[in-house]
Amino acid sequence: MKSPSPCILIIFGASGDLARRKLIPALFDLYRLKTLPQPFCVLGAGRTSIDDLEFRQRVEESILEFSDPKPTSLGEVKEFCRFFHFQSMDLNKDGFLKLKDRLNLLESQTNIGGNYIFYLSVPPSSYETIINGLGEEGLQKEISCTHCWRRIIIEKPFGYNLDSAIRLTRGIRKVFREPQIYRIDHYLGKETVQNMLVFRFANGIFEPLWNRNYVHHVEITSAESNGVEGRGGYYDTAGALRDMVQNHLLQILGVIAMEPPSSFDPDAVRNETSKVFTSLRQIQPEEIDRSVVRGQYTDSVLNGKRVSGYREESLVAKGSRTETYAALKVFVDNWRWGGVPFYIRTGKRLPTRVTEVVIHFKPTPHFLFAKESRESSGLNQLILRIQPNEGILLKFGMKIPGSGFRVKNVNMDFHYSELSEQRVPTAYERLLLDCMLGDGTLYARGDAVEACWRFIDPILDAWENNPELKIYGYRSGTWGPREANDLFADHGVEWRYPCKNLVDDGEVCEL
Amino acid sequence: MKSPSPCILIIFGASGDLARRKLIPALFDLYRLKTLPQPFCVLGAGRTSIDDLEFRQRVEESILEFSDPKPTSLGEVKEFCRFFHFQSMDLNKDGFLKLKDRLNLLESQTNIGGNYIFYLSVPPSSYETIINGLGEEGLQKEISCTHCWRRIIIEKPFGYNLDSAIRLTRGIRKVFREPQIYRIDHYLGKETVQNMLVFRFANGIFEPLWNRNYVHHVEITSAESNGVEGRGGYYDTAGALRDMVQNHLLQILGVIAMEPPSSFDPDAVRNETSKVFTSLRQIQPEEIDRSVVRGQYTDSVLNGKRVSGYREESLVAKGSRTETYAALKVFVDNWRWGGVPFYIRTGKRLPTRVTEVVIHFKPTPHFLFAKESRESSGLNQLILRIQPNEGILLKFGMKIPGSGFRVKNVNMDFHYSELSEQRVPTAYERLLLDCMLGDGTLYARGDAVEACWRFIDPILDAWENNPELKIYGYRSGTWGPREANDLFADHGVEWRYPCKNLVDDGEVCEL
Repeated sequence: MKSPSPCILIIFGASGDLARRKLIPALFDLYRLKTLPQPFCVLGAGRTSIDDLEFRQRVEESILEFSDPKPTSLGEVKEFCRFFHFQSMDLNKDGFLKLKDRLNLLESQTNIGGNYIFYLSVPPSSYETIINGLGEEGLQKEISCTHCWRRIIIEKPFGYNLDSAIRLTRGIRKVFREPQIYRIDHYLGKETVQNMLVFRFANGIFEPLWNRNYVHHVEITSAESNGVEGRGGYYDTAGALRDMVQNHLLQILGVIAMEPPSSFDPDAVRNETSKVFTSLRQIQPEEIDRSVVRGQYTDSVLNGKRVSGYREESLVAKGSRTETYAALKVFVDNWRWGGVPFYIRTGKRLPTRVTEVVIHFKPTPHFLFAKESRESSGLNQLILRIQPNEGILLKFGMKIPGSGFRVKNVNMDFHYSELSEQRVPTAYERLLLDCMLGDGTLYARGDAVEACWRFIDPILDAWENNPELKIYGYRSGTWGPREANDLFADHGVEWRYPCKNLVDDGEVCEL
Repeated sequence: MKSPSPCILIIFGASGDLARRKLIPALFDLYRLKTLPQPFCVLGAGRTSIDDLEFRQRVEESILEFSDPKPTSLGEVKEFCRFFHFQSMDLNKDGFLKLKDRLNLLESQTNIGGNYIFYLSVPPSSYETIINGLGEEGLQKEISCTHCWRRIIIEKPFGYNLDSAIRLTRGIRKVFREPQIYRIDHYLGKETVQNMLVFRFANGIFEPLWNRNYVHHVEITSAESNGVEGRGGYYDTAGALRDMVQNHLLQILGVIAMEPPSSFDPDAVRNETSKVFTSLRQIQPEEIDRSVVRGQYTDSVLNGKRVSGYREESLVAKGSRTETYAALKVFVDNWRWGGVPFYIRTGKRLPTRVTEVVIHFKPTPHFLFAKESRESSGLNQLILRIQPNEGILLKFGMKIPGSGFRVKNVNMDFHYSELSEQRVPTAYERLLLDCMLGDGTLYARGDAVEACWRFIDPILDAWENNPELKIYGYRSGTWGPREANDLFADHGVEWRYPCKNLVDDGEVCEL
């Protein structure tokens, strides 16, 4: 396995939630696995007026609270904390000068050389200021040192719509070149999403079926059982389409629908997913009500407790028309997928938390057992479970023991937990290491982000400008508005329900 | 489900081993499931001088000894025994007249009408006499009654070689028409063999892979851990090729390799398997040593106990060159299978008892993960386990959790036992019922039997006439002669070993 070269990781927003919950625990895991670069250090940067020791105290707290598994000794934690430094700074000329000086100092103290990763763990509104500040000090320049590299990681949202995304990309690219930019989509960092690449391309038996000849339709579901919790303010300006579909779910669609790349080089892989995004059939304004269904959760009683409706949540506008549920019927207009519908669905306050892809295969060209078997054996299904209970489930027909030839659907499954003697790395752990290694395969490229916005934008526009387009209420703890089933053209085909409606039956889940 | 019409089952050899161990328990199972015809009776026939009561006593003993599960009450057994009658008779004119009279009497007593099944549970040497005897009394004639039927079930061996098989068929067909003839191959009665038909033809996802484009090779293995036990006399005149390959294993090959039939009518299905048998590429005399390997078990020590070699077994010729092991490389020369080798292997005193089919798929056209993955992920395999631990196992590559893209083979399995809320019927139970229903789908047709002999005959001839063709010794408890691996042309490809050699490691089996 390759090891990353020495570097300094500069985190803007190092005392924020993301850093505390995800980044620092991920670095701690890399440290425990001895995969961190040597030498290495982290420089927190921000307005907070704290020194290295106070910062390390916070790092220690974050590890004790969020690291999983918990550290085995406090000594180990203390040792790890010595990587951490803090530079208090304003986001102005003076501040970036201070940052530059501090980086030079750290370099000379640690013998790291000039490799930097700038991690922008801050609201998008600060991106421009920070990027320009870095640019003015020339901190992005890889020619300022010998054989060194400078990279920047930014977090979603990558824009609010197509225009703002293009503006954002332009702004970053004034300072950084595209290969220096790492746009994190943590879904791509999930083991189960990466495994889709292996599942498809390391095996000879799935790829021949992976096309319009054999696939009837594809479902991509990401359900959350939570509501918006404390994030009502942000969420009410975003909605499910921006929050989940434009990024995570389209990225999954990219991995499912892509052609085999000729190599696993970052650009070879991302060229293929980009091709999928540019092949997405634009949904025309007049089709929107037939191709997209949006919903908003209403109050309900779950396990004997009342839960509030979306419009009652704090910081949500009283008459909000922000969708907490979206379901889409999407076509990938290319040779492989022509005519195969992809159904994408996401929502909050659904009966369970689950993310999965279901490949529904076409029925046999001729049903031989009809005479014997009243019960149809249904379609073959391949279920790729991303989270939780990571695994793969294949549904197919077998003979019911006894006379005649009666057919019944059975399951064959593989649980990912069977594979991992070692623990499964978190998405951030994987992605941080990849960035240190200069491997952008699992990061979203600018053109891909724009292509996804190009697909999503007309839907958002129509919703905003056409008040006749309905938003359906759905009771918390159900699978969203009934109307979402109307997306399926075929009689008898509907969404897969990995669990039943919570309000009816309590949780009974498959896989 | 269809119910069979009333009939009389006439068993020749009713006090023999097959009747005691298999037929009577199978009838008892049908009785318990309430699937026997009503009315129904069994007439044992043979030289033994016993009456109905004595015969019923034997039937009762056989049920108590061999029925599985055991009967719940003796009353149930007694009730069942009332179906049974016995006609003591010689196999001469007088005897068959007696039989005819007795059948007429039973008919008038039971109101069954004229439907008869003659079951020849006797050595093949008696077939001709019995069949001619029946013919002389016109007992095979379906015109002697209104809408009635007459059927005959015969047991393997269906001949000793091609000539004798043709003679046998001619002899039977002088008296019975082909649709009246039911040649039992109990392998076709096994649930797991029938399930191969359902697995292939009720699912859309396997059939597209089921051809030369995706299949690298196919293995069919039937291993026994027993030696010849008390059957040395018979076995020494037969050998593994006649005993297992010509019938059971070629029938399995037929089911695996057949084209989809257009319906499940007996002749539609058997037309397709027959086409496979007539497509078998004849092994030329000069290729025999490269395409067929034979072996004979030698003595060994298993679990601390000495087991004898084949030539020491009772009733086996001292210098016997009868094979107790045979391995063949076979080609099905048709559009679907052109160039795909089928490897067939059977033997006695192997490390375990197992019958299975393994479909080895071709590797991906381009191995994307080579850079990352030193360990090759191997070929995808689909294992159809016929017995024991009936089930299906699919081997494919998945990503090893962690950085990079390292691939590891994993298993996804389905155990047939998960499916059966009810018990799995035995092969004889299924086949007897099918014969009563007039469904010959799972019986071997005359043309198929001859086609199989046509393939086997040249090998037997060569072995008999060419003493230079080697027979290899192999130690009891091992997987047969090492030379059997030379049948594989490709470097690194060899037989699958569901269990290790007993002599080395004890039994460690998969699936």
